[in-house]
Amino acid sequence: MQAKRRLVKGNEAIALGAIAGGCDAFFGYPITPQNEVPELLSAEMPRHGRVFLQAESEVASINMVYGAAAAGMRAMTSSSSPGISLMMEGVSYLAGAELPCLIVNVMRGGPGLGSISPSQADYFQAVKGGGHGDYRCIVLAPWSVQEMYTFPAMAFEMADRYRNPAIILADGVLGQMMEPAAIPDDPPVVDKPDKPWATNGRNGRAHKNVANSLVIDPYELRDHCLKLQGKYEKMQEECKWDTRLAEDADILVVAYGIAARVAFSACKIARQKGIKAGLFRPISLFPYPSKPLQETAEGKRRVLAFELSGGQMVEDVRLAMNGAIPVSFYGEMGGVIPSPAELADRIMEAAQ
Amino acid sequence: MQAKRRLVKGNEAIALGAIAGGCDAFFGYPITPQNEVPELLSAEMPRHGRVFLQAESEVASINMVYGAAAAGMRAMTSSSSPGISLMMEGVSYLAGAELPCLIVNVMRGGPGLGSISPSQADYFQAVKGGGHGDYRCIVLAPWSVQEMYTFPAMAFEMADRYRNPAIILADGVLGQMMEPAAIPDDPPVVDKPDKPWATNGRNGRAHKNVANSLVIDPYELRDHCLKLQGKYEKMQEECKWDTRLAEDADILVVAYGIAARVAFSACKIARQKGIKAGLFRPISLFPYPSKPLQETAEGKRRVLAFELSGGQMVEDVRLAMNGAIPVSFYGEMGGVIPSPAELADRIMEAAQ
Amino acid sequence: MQAKRRLVKGNEAIALGAIAGGCDAFFGYPITPQNEVPELLSAEMPRHGRVFLQAESEVASINMVYGAAAAGMRAMTSSSSPGISLMMEGVSYLAGAELPCLIVNVMRGGPGLGSISPSQADYFQAVKGGGHGDYRCIVLAPWSVQEMYTFPAMAFEMADRYRNPAIILADGVLGQMMEPAAIPDDPPVVDKPDKPWATNGRNGRAHKNVANSLVIDPYELRDHCLKLQGKYEKMQEECKWDTRLAEDADILVVAYGIAARVAFSACKIARQKGIKAGLFRPISLFPYPSKPLQETAEGKRRVLAFELSGGQMVEDVRLAMNGAIPVSFYGEMGGVIPSPAELADRIMEAAQ
Amino acid sequence: MQAKRRLVKGNEAIALGAIAGGCDAFFGYPITPQNEVPELLSAEMPRHGRVFLQAESEVASINMVYGAAAAGMRAMTSSSSPGISLMMEGVSYLAGAELPCLIVNVMRGGPGLGSISPSQADYFQAVKGGGHGDYRCIVLAPWSVQEMYTFPAMAFEMADRYRNPAIILADGVLGQMMEPAAIPDDPPVVDKPDKPWATNGRNGRAHKNVANSLVIDPYELRDHCLKLQGKYEKMQEECKWDTRLAEDADILVVAYGIAARVAFSACKIARQKGIKAGLFRPISLFPYPSKPLQETAEGKRRVLAFELSGGQMVEDVRLAMNGAIPVSFYGEMGGVIPSPAELADRIMEAAQ
Repeated sequence: MQAKRRLVKGNEAIALGAIAGGCDAFFGYPITPQNEVPELLSAEMPRHGRVFLQAESEVASINMVYGAAAAGMRAMTSSSSPGISLMMEGVSYLAGAELPCLIVNVMRGGPGLGSISPSQADYFQAVKGGGHGDYRCIVLAPWSVQEMYTFPAMAFEMADRYRNPAIILADGVLGQMMEPAAIPDDPPVVDKPDKPWATNGRNGRAHKNVANSLVIDPYELRDHCLKLQGKYEKMQEECKWDTRLAEDADILVVAYGIAARVAFSACKIARQKGIKAGLFRPISLFPYPSKPLQETAEGKRRVLAFELSGGQMVEDVRLAMNGAIPVSFYGEMGGVIPSPAELADRIMEAAQ
Repeated sequence: MQAKRRLVKGNEAIALGAIAGGCDAFFGYPITPQNEVPELLSAEMPRHGRVFLQAESEVASINMVYGAAAAGMRAMTSSSSPGISLMMEGVSYLAGAELPCLIVNVMRGGPGLGSISPSQADYFQAVKGGGHGDYRCIVLAPWSVQEMYTFPAMAFEMADRYRNPAIILADGVLGQMMEPAAIPDDPPVVDKPDKPWATNGRNGRAHKNVANSLVIDPYELRDHCLKLQGKYEKMQEECKWDTRLAEDADILVVAYGIAARVAFSACKIARQKGIKAGLFRPISLFPYPSKPLQETAEGKRRVLAFELSGGQMVEDVRLAMNGAIPVSFYGEMGGVIPSPAELADRIMEAAQ
Repeated sequence: MQAKRRLVKGNEAIALGAIAGGCDAFFGYPITPQNEVPELLSAEMPRHGRVFLQAESEVASINMVYGAAAAGMRAMTSSSSPGISLMMEGVSYLAGAELPCLIVNVMRGGPGLGSISPSQADYFQAVKGGGHGDYRCIVLAPWSVQEMYTFPAMAFEMADRYRNPAIILADGVLGQMMEPAAIPDDPPVVDKPDKPWATNGRNGRAHKNVANSLVIDPYELRDHCLKLQGKYEKMQEECKWDTRLAEDADILVVAYGIAARVAFSACKIARQKGIKAGLFRPISLFPYPSKPLQETAEGKRRVLAFELSGGQMVEDVRLAMNGAIPVSFYGEMGGVIPSPAELADRIMEAAQ
Repeated sequence: MQAKRRLVKGNEAIALGAIAGGCDAFFGYPITPQNEVPELLSAEMPRHGRVFLQAESEVASINMVYGAAAAGMRAMTSSSSPGISLMMEGVSYLAGAELPCLIVNVMRGGPGLGSISPSQADYFQAVKGGGHGDYRCIVLAPWSVQEMYTFPAMAFEMADRYRNPAIILADGVLGQMMEPAAIPDDPPVVDKPDKPWATNGRNGRAHKNVANSLVIDPYELRDHCLKLQGKYEKMQEECKWDTRLAEDADILVVAYGIAARVAFSACKIARQKGIKAGLFRPISLFPYPSKPLQETAEGKRRVLAFELSGGQMVEDVRLAMNGAIPVSFYGEMGGVIPSPAELADRIMEAAQ
């Protein structure tokens, strides 16, 4: 089936992408700037015989996701920064119980109520674990409406494969902006894996499945945690990244999501002004593509981390470089997005 | 007034320390292994004319803390890992609205329900920001019952001075263990700062105070975030740390809280076996004592980060070292605590 | 289509009857002794492409019923006494907003948590209005498993016709007992009325529909209340009742639901002992069949109201008699059900 | 101590009366037209070393009342019609567990959200039992600001004596109107009864007290219900009522609360027009003064029940008359209050 190019909003693309990715059930609570996700799904999910439910709160949403995921459904929620914070206990429970699911965060300015403008200030929360305990989520950062459409299927597939929550970390610009994307008229038939662990009846087994994160014996819990760490280790094979103009660059800009689009334009401006700048774009934020970044950065004069935050991803850049190459940081907060020209200036400063 | 030495549990010491620190109001919801904190406060707070309230949930608790803190009270909550995760939205709101308060986390094994055994796996959450947006909490890590008693006053004082939430990051061992501590019979008279920003009536002013974290204009929010970042920068002056046997050490163990006690014993064992090991103990986890650690580590052969987690604080150790000295990691998860002898073996391995 | 006779539980019959009555959506929260209702519906409703949702509480359930009813659905909830009490605000809202729905109360012993044994002690609540304000619900009282099956359709039809909540007032015996009932294999095709007032989109109208019970102007609210009272007046045409052995009786027992079954047996025993006893069974409790009762009672020596309560329906019997014929009362509380012989003794006492 | 006459609002009088009546703890949630009650108590209760707590909902409020009442406190809540409906489960639990408390309902127009204008349409709910099960609340209906002040103490005293919830049934006029009332500057010292049943510690007993409404065995629950019925029977001794111009009256108006004030004026107007009208004012609505009403009505030509409702108390009037004297009804709904002249016209019609 040929995919038509359509002009859609990023949030709509996520919703359509979720359906295309075989999402069986959506649970959520409204918050700007992601409301187009539940709005579209509230109409489309029932049309496809799937479940859409507006929960009474974000705490409820994530626990409904837990229940549906435990029952073997491809379950999903979507929110924006403050709403995601309310889900932290639930996310830790999902990770602890090894339940696959998809959580979309269309980040807005914080902390607190903050603003409804775009931001990337929830990187730590998504990547380092905003909930308690040693756990990790798969974190994917789209940079275009097209990726907003294709990433849900990828996230569901990875989540199922690793039995682990996956997060799509978008932001208010990506959610609200429109651009053409190849989106087929009808969602594809999705080949979903068997889930013999699902709590959907005995199905002839002698035992019943249980979805649980309580492991009261410390040694058993240690074994469980080691199993989880083993999964996180294995996830390193899934690292996803992109480079642009990087090969001959003297200065390497590291940026993800919408910031990477600004950065790519800025690199081109810098090159016009005689500075060989290139882009390294992490696509998977966890697992973070540290080795590819090291290899790409090798021999460069400097690395510049650029984020819409006070400085979060830069820690993973520094950890990857480990002192081998100097790392600078440029960030903007509160919903302010610098122009490519402004960033190009920062690149040229950094290049000095 | 002379402080008597008394044999008390760590959780009781925190409760007594909160009263000694001038805590006006406590809000919380029960969870093991911190229940002695609310239990003691439920009896003692009313006796001192202060407020104790068991809230209907942790989400309620942290929002009640928000309200009381906004009104100028020294407000506090206490919980353990899953309960703390439920507070993440509220903590971000408190930080965004610049409200001082004290949050105690007596960490247990995670992720999810996990176990009720001790753990240090909430370091990322406390230090990097488990909630959304660019914010930081002051984080203090006691290692003895005595510090469980003295840290609440210190935390309240710092919180008030910076108008910022403070966290005491303890764990199930520290909470449950008994040891003698110097605790006066009667709480001292506390000299609390004026809070002209508090929402406790106009008090003759033309305007009314508002406690708010909503800053809808991106440029205003940027300015607000820059102000917050300025505070976090200034907090670097508050770094607290301790060293033991560090001066002549070849290998430096970095550990906090209960892990540091194990590490100190392990260093002594290692020295008996001919390995000059020393301890660097971060006491403030935010601000992290990176410079003191760099200075202490200078000239050592190796740094070994030891935590009761899968590897969290080690990132701050690596960031501090920035490749200058090799960093090893040893962690245990799930509530398992290695013996000093086991850790000494790891020190000796690392020393090879 | 021929209806097969099947041996089913009363609660199952209600569930099957709800489906047969065209129930589009069920919302509820578990409570004994009605759990077979949601249990069966949780499996059957999705199979028929309808909605089953276990809400987070009874307060939530009734408000979900409000939402679904407003949208034109045949919406339903089911609970037992304490759970029904939690719905009182919602029921008043439904009545105020003129929304049709079905509420099933499988009464248990009260007050408070009481017991899980059968009872008829919620008569006042159902018939006089447990919620606030001048409103009435249609109240139907089945006395057999067969009526448990047929009444939901009747209740939905009346609810729709009057745009008013309807209650089926059953009890723990009727819910738990099994007897044969004629129940077709497949639910019939239900002819549902148009609901041009439903909030299901503009559908070409200039205005949007609103489901609301707020009428802030007192004179408008008076008009609204008068309209409601007019409906309740008109409902008098719907009175339903049954009589057995009544024509030549000297003493008339008035009883509804399971109590009427005991009463019918007791009348037969009394007749064997020479006392001409007969039964008047109100089927609609609101509208209460006062006139038919007056007419039936005319010329009798005495009326005996028998209820599984401390004396509730007896007030409507006394109001109907208005002193014309002496009224006695016999009730049992707490889940105790007298045998027909015990009741026959009371009938004979009353006949003296 | 001499009581000064002060000009206060009815709601303020209730709050001051609660303090005067020894109220230890207030729990509530805001709703018009009773907000002055919690507003005043929020300031005054702490000043007297008592508890004021704004709960997160009315469901929470009544359950907090349950907890405090169980612990032997004089506990209270206040709300208006929709908020009271949310408490129906809790009220039944309080009655079932035999816990004394005070519930104030400042009635507004219903059903549903209705209006914020005065009403008497919650009579059935208060008097017949809006919650489930066979229980009764003591119900007192003030008709002046003075009674708003004196009734809380009376209600607390009766509640304690009978171990039963008490309701003050006021309305929006009484709550909002100002008139002079004798209110002492300082609340009196209240002599509270011992509560050996309270769950406030063993206090040297071998057993611990339990506050419970669960009685799972039907025969035990029957005994418990019979004990409750015995109390309700005994409460008949507490009947309170007032008469004005009743002795020589031909027509007797029965009205309570604010309606009785309108009725008293109307009686005087009717008398000026040659109709001998008199007033019977029930003050306790449960126990309803049926016998005093019968005695007062004896020999009258007609009884006219007047209420701000569609017809609720009139049922108790009819039950009291039992056909002996004709009973008419006049009611207004929705917040509309007829003038004394309008009511006088109705009296004169009824007198024909």
